[in-house]
Amino acid sequence: MATQSSSIDRAKSTERLERDIETLAGPDYTRSDEAIQRYAYTPEYRNTLNYFKGELETLGFEVYEDPVGTLVARNRPKGEKVFGVGSHCDSNRNGGKYDGTMGVANALEVCRLNHDLGLELPLQLISFLEEEGSGFGQMLLGSRIIAQRVTEEELREKFLAIDDGRSFWEHAKEAGYEPERWQDSIHILDDLAGWIELHIEQARVLQDTGNRIGIVGAIAGYVHADITVHGRGDHAGATPMDFRQDAGLVAAECMLELERLAKEAGKGTVGTVGEIELRPNLINAVPGKARFSLDIRGVDEVGFRGAARAIADFADEAARRRSMTAEYAQRQTLSATPLDGRVVAALEEAAQTSGEPYITMHSGAAHDTMSIADRIPSAMVFVPCKDGISHSPEEDADPADAALGAEVMLNTIRSLTAAGQ
Amino acid sequence: MATQSSSIDRAKSTERLERDIETLAGPDYTRSDEAIQRYAYTPEYRNTLNYFKGELETLGFEVYEDPVGTLVARNRPKGEKVFGVGSHCDSNRNGGKYDGTMGVANALEVCRLNHDLGLELPLQLISFLEEEGSGFGQMLLGSRIIAQRVTEEELREKFLAIDDGRSFWEHAKEAGYEPERWQDSIHILDDLAGWIELHIEQARVLQDTGNRIGIVGAIAGYVHADITVHGRGDHAGATPMDFRQDAGLVAAECMLELERLAKEAGKGTVGTVGEIELRPNLINAVPGKARFSLDIRGVDEVGFRGAARAIADFADEAARRRSMTAEYAQRQTLSATPLDGRVVAALEEAAQTSGEPYITMHSGAAHDTMSIADRIPSAMVFVPCKDGISHSPEEDADPADAALGAEVMLNTIRSLTAAGQ
Repeated sequence: MATQSSSIDRAKSTERLERDIETLAGPDYTRSDEAIQRYAYTPEYRNTLNYFKGELETLGFEVYEDPVGTLVARNRPKGEKVFGVGSHCDSNRNGGKYDGTMGVANALEVCRLNHDLGLELPLQLISFLEEEGSGFGQMLLGSRIIAQRVTEEELREKFLAIDDGRSFWEHAKEAGYEPERWQDSIHILDDLAGWIELHIEQARVLQDTGNRIGIVGAIAGYVHADITVHGRGDHAGATPMDFRQDAGLVAAECMLELERLAKEAGKGTVGTVGEIELRPNLINAVPGKARFSLDIRGVDEVGFRGAARAIADFADEAARRRSMTAEYAQRQTLSATPLDGRVVAALEEAAQTSGEPYITMHSGAAHDTMSIADRIPSAMVFVPCKDGISHSPEEDADPADAALGAEVMLNTIRSLTAAGQ
Repeated sequence: MATQSSSIDRAKSTERLERDIETLAGPDYTRSDEAIQRYAYTPEYRNTLNYFKGELETLGFEVYEDPVGTLVARNRPKGEKVFGVGSHCDSNRNGGKYDGTMGVANALEVCRLNHDLGLELPLQLISFLEEEGSGFGQMLLGSRIIAQRVTEEELREKFLAIDDGRSFWEHAKEAGYEPERWQDSIHILDDLAGWIELHIEQARVLQDTGNRIGIVGAIAGYVHADITVHGRGDHAGATPMDFRQDAGLVAAECMLELERLAKEAGKGTVGTVGEIELRPNLINAVPGKARFSLDIRGVDEVGFRGAARAIADFADEAARRRSMTAEYAQRQTLSATPLDGRVVAALEEAAQTSGEPYITMHSGAAHDTMSIADRIPSAMVFVPCKDGISHSPEEDADPADAALGAEVMLNTIRSLTAAGQ
């Protein structure tokens, strides 16, 4: 019997994916009883890597870890071209079962289908380190190390663990890695002919449009920044309203203005104040200082960068109007990432063949694929997540959609690999 | 030579007060290098009580502590009428040298002048415990215990240390006190014929009007409450603006509305959001929950209570407009406190006699005097603090004003004691 795409047993794939996901939601794999909480160099993260390692070795893959702990598995020796699949298996501190982890499980399922169907496609699975930044407060950290988008000084001294304030470097060494060889991580990309990452959408577009597959043609860029307002700490009871320099009120004005600016910019631009910190943060003290974070994103560079500039200017003026000052400090920025037209087209064709509803869309969230898309022809596949809820224990998605994704990706890689040969 | 009020050596009083205040700003008396930080049952607080104890014993006072650690010193045996003076010597966590402490030093100076001048006025000094709430998050705690305005359950189980979460009861016992006898604290008030507390103003009225003494005729009441907004935690990049339930934005609207409401209420009504807490408080997460504190005060009951009701209603509506819910929960409230007309009039006369500029005013800040003014004929004396800055290491005041305050208070007590005999 010929191994056509139609011969894939979706129910079996769904079952295997469900088992992977539920296993990795068990107590050995999360640091919290109430959520998935898993980050680099913890026992729970180690257990998760070991789970994938075991499954991939069963399929005959050679599995190794790079100098900082990125998991790589190949079914071809080094030097031979392979097609990359994968995602990340760390989580938000208050995360769900699907963000990242379902993408690594899906990549594993692509490897399983390849094996079951005897396709002998050359594959490389990657599970990136610290995508969420829950360990060291740095998003996309593992893929940025691979892409050499960090400095040694940052790794040695600046990126500090949220839990204990010690450096990434120290933690990596303690976990048995060789951070001094971090620049070798780039060789993970040496043989990659292409790359596809599957991820839950983390928004409502697929659910609301009734599609099971989203083929991602571009990933939004972002600006991460902080604004600090310097006012004057005063007694909350004894300081008349007109004599105050309440830094919290400037923060409040900026929070509402950022919402207005993001809506005004349109084209999917979003802006969020996710963190706020008042000083001294006491019920009976007028806040003398306020710091709040900005997360501003979009695929339209003019739109989202314009909103970032506008909120910095607004903060300055709003503070001045109240006789205070405001400082804007950028933490990190990444341009919007166009993805590869040929990989996107091959995914569209395979999705069409699957007979299931799909759309081509953009990603509002950042993903590790952003770090490597300028070097490797890349695309992404989204599957729906319920009500768009993510970064929450309430996150919910259907393993059957990931199974469909695995089928679409497998057929995409078949056609691209055949065309490339 | 007759001991007339004019014979008081103000320079000498100023010098002694300055020495007291500077001593108590030294490293043995504060837990922070950058501010005065002193609260109940810490070694620094103990050292502070010991300082006053030593000074008062030199003057022949009998010094004791009540069952929870309130310091009391008398120059008459129990059962004889005495006139009360004092304040508190704990501080805000990020406090200055003058708030509270200058009032206790001033009371000590009244005792010294009484001794120096051989007046033999019957005096009782009180240094209240935990006025600021830095130890257990409860303002006016010591004076509320004296006034029996707490419950045993609160002391045993509900009032928990900010530092370690253990109960007030446990800490008091550990410090060698007998909290099970807390109801005996009320006997501190048994022999009091009157009460005057000196305090820095913590606002700019005296400075701006060029007065050295403020005679306080009423203390503002307050409402302390929290509003919690329940939204939905979402991914900050992937959730379109129109699909959000961002709890932080409702908080921002309420912060600005409270400012508007307080200004509208007028008559010195003030409203402050001093604390805010977003969940999960991550740069890349839409806040699913926001909690913020309300501190609303005034001498006009209708004004400040109306503002509290209005902000609760506004939060409800603002949350509903964005498909969220908001809950209002009161922490504590106290009515505005009128002070005693006879003591106020005697203070006005003594201030007039001093030849220095004074006004009669109200207090926007809460003070321990609120807890006892319904039982003991009470008043307060304010002295200027620079730019109205308080609850801050930048707090600044002039010991010469406290010396003037001691003179005015001494002469007030002379006239009231003479009149009462």
